[in-house]
Amino acid sequence: MVSIDDLPIRDELRGQSPYGAPQLDVPVRLNTNENPYPLPESVVASIAERVTEAARSLNRYPDRDAVELRTELARYLSRSGGLAVGPAQVWAANGSNEVLQQLLQTFAGPGRTAIGFEPSYSMHAIISRGTGTGWVSGPRNADFTIDVGAAERAIAELAPDVVFVCSPNNPTGTAVSAETVLRLYEAAQAAKPSLVVVDEAYGEFSHRPSLLPLIEGRPHLVLTRTMSKAFGAAGLRLGYLAADPAVVDAVQLVRLPYHLSAVTQATALAALEHTGTLLAYVEQLKGERDRLVAELTALGCEVTESDANFVQFGRFPDARAMWRRLLEHGVLVRDNGVPGHLRVTAGTPQENDAFLEAVRVSLKDLKYPRENSA
Amino acid sequence: MVSIDDLPIRDELRGQSPYGAPQLDVPVRLNTNENPYPLPESVVASIAERVTEAARSLNRYPDRDAVELRTELARYLSRSGGLAVGPAQVWAANGSNEVLQQLLQTFAGPGRTAIGFEPSYSMHAIISRGTGTGWVSGPRNADFTIDVGAAERAIAELAPDVVFVCSPNNPTGTAVSAETVLRLYEAAQAAKPSLVVVDEAYGEFSHRPSLLPLIEGRPHLVLTRTMSKAFGAAGLRLGYLAADPAVVDAVQLVRLPYHLSAVTQATALAALEHTGTLLAYVEQLKGERDRLVAELTALGCEVTESDANFVQFGRFPDARAMWRRLLEHGVLVRDNGVPGHLRVTAGTPQENDAFLEAVRVSLKDLKYPRENSA
Repeated sequence: MVSIDDLPIRDELRGQSPYGAPQLDVPVRLNTNENPYPLPESVVASIAERVTEAARSLNRYPDRDAVELRTELARYLSRSGGLAVGPAQVWAANGSNEVLQQLLQTFAGPGRTAIGFEPSYSMHAIISRGTGTGWVSGPRNADFTIDVGAAERAIAELAPDVVFVCSPNNPTGTAVSAETVLRLYEAAQAAKPSLVVVDEAYGEFSHRPSLLPLIEGRPHLVLTRTMSKAFGAAGLRLGYLAADPAVVDAVQLVRLPYHLSAVTQATALAALEHTGTLLAYVEQLKGERDRLVAELTALGCEVTESDANFVQFGRFPDARAMWRRLLEHGVLVRDNGVPGHLRVTAGTPQENDAFLEAVRVSLKDLKYPRENSA
Repeated sequence: MVSIDDLPIRDELRGQSPYGAPQLDVPVRLNTNENPYPLPESVVASIAERVTEAARSLNRYPDRDAVELRTELARYLSRSGGLAVGPAQVWAANGSNEVLQQLLQTFAGPGRTAIGFEPSYSMHAIISRGTGTGWVSGPRNADFTIDVGAAERAIAELAPDVVFVCSPNNPTGTAVSAETVLRLYEAAQAAKPSLVVVDEAYGEFSHRPSLLPLIEGRPHLVLTRTMSKAFGAAGLRLGYLAADPAVVDAVQLVRLPYHLSAVTQATALAALEHTGTLLAYVEQLKGERDRLVAELTALGCEVTESDANFVQFGRFPDARAMWRRLLEHGVLVRDNGVPGHLRVTAGTPQENDAFLEAVRVSLKDLKYPRENSA
């Protein structure tokens, strides 16, 4: 029996575990920020139709440049993001993870460094390391907003090649203002210049408008998005970016040829035909998110203000114990390793009711909140 | 107007162009080794059915470990490859390119080196460089077989971390014997030990049995495959590997989570239901491949023995001129940069007839073959 340790793998991989949330079979799964609403049958029918058509020429390689898909993504962004963009400013890949990986392969990699302000989306650090990029964890305030002065100083000192800004931030839900992004961008340009990646995976759920207009006239600013959340299509794995056309040209130097399958392109195009229908669910989820914030607060939790489809809540003397207790009550939430905190995805009203009831009971079981327990 | 050169991209990317064959709209496209036969309607119907089902839960992330798909791929390999393997020995990704990238991220990368015997599949070098892996071009004999003695010496001297063996080799069509692979494996183990990757993308078209049985008892030997060619599904982007379960565990340390979409998994499973039907086309293509070899030889070309769904032919004083001339006659073949040679994919009988006629006329136009012209 051979084990990983017997293989000539890279030293930095030794002792590591594959990244990923536990996939447990429980009644209420609110742990991976999925959209709880299955695609309506009208969308399923469009997907079946488009994929059937694509399957008829599946013996051929797909459009390597995904021009039709990028055109439709650009149309969607132009309608919803506050800036008219064209396909030359848009690039797509298998999930925003692959978009981020391509950006890091192009602009970072061995001998270069990236910075993010943690806690944030953990894949920023993981993909940085996976591409040989040095990773630096920058600071946040106690309320999980970015400490702009400290961030500027860290950028000036480190002169990183890539700066990650996640807005709304995962796992905290915190939105970042355009003003903050601009200050970090200026600091990054003064220091290097470096690429600033604004990860707006949860952008559609925000109270604020998209940060898309900031790419105008800023060739080192990239906005990334995904169809996983707002379009209810986590299973599709379709991420995209908007940036200066030169950035789109540049990532094509490292993308694997034909990285985006014909069925992925067809499915994404079908979903984009139904943007209005799908974004109606986003409105429902925003209402439920706001309800979670209000009711968790009423239950005595410390709740982080959220612009996403999830809510960070605490503060628990033992977050892991709380996580386990909720699981015993049939509700799976996420322990992102933020001390004292857990993260819950906004589900259907019924799922959220079940979650809130589980929280109420679990707090009682564990005798939380305790005075001065944090 | 910003250009790539104005961006802070990695130095080694400066001046490069994106990899990929020209996608030209001509009557007869025999340039990318695609299977010329569209999937039959029975397969298209199965895909539509499976994808429809997958689309109904597209709001959820896909099975991160693709267990059902790996189980079916293992069954297919066990039936056809001469060795019983299970899902723990199989891994799948978006095209064999992504499989190779994951292997290099795990076993190579910065400070490590890979070797291949060129001319061979150019993505081996490109993905090596893309992952920061040093690339060394090893030797071949004049007849495009591997010079085993020289290869052993190169491996002993270089002690590479990864050794690529492509069988049947792209673009030459040359099969590699099990004996040769074993000698290279022994040399690689003695030198380092290093990972030996046998790229069998065209394995189903070979006159020889698969090299799959060689993975037994050799934890550093990996076999890669694709559904692009034999299954007529280039548009699907489904590559896979077979190896010791520890290798499958190891690549999971670097794979992006949920890298394989639910629609890709569903489509691949549907195609695998029709293995018998799809592999019948492989038999037809093998016959056509053998006919191309015979008729090109009869036309006075030097033809490399082929075990793949393509044929390398020459020897032209100016291969580029011949390529252009064929294009003028409506036939697109591939100039892989092998001096004096071009590569043609075996198409339908009609496409091959058109190609052979174009060759006949072009040879006459260019007054090839010339005596002593090579």
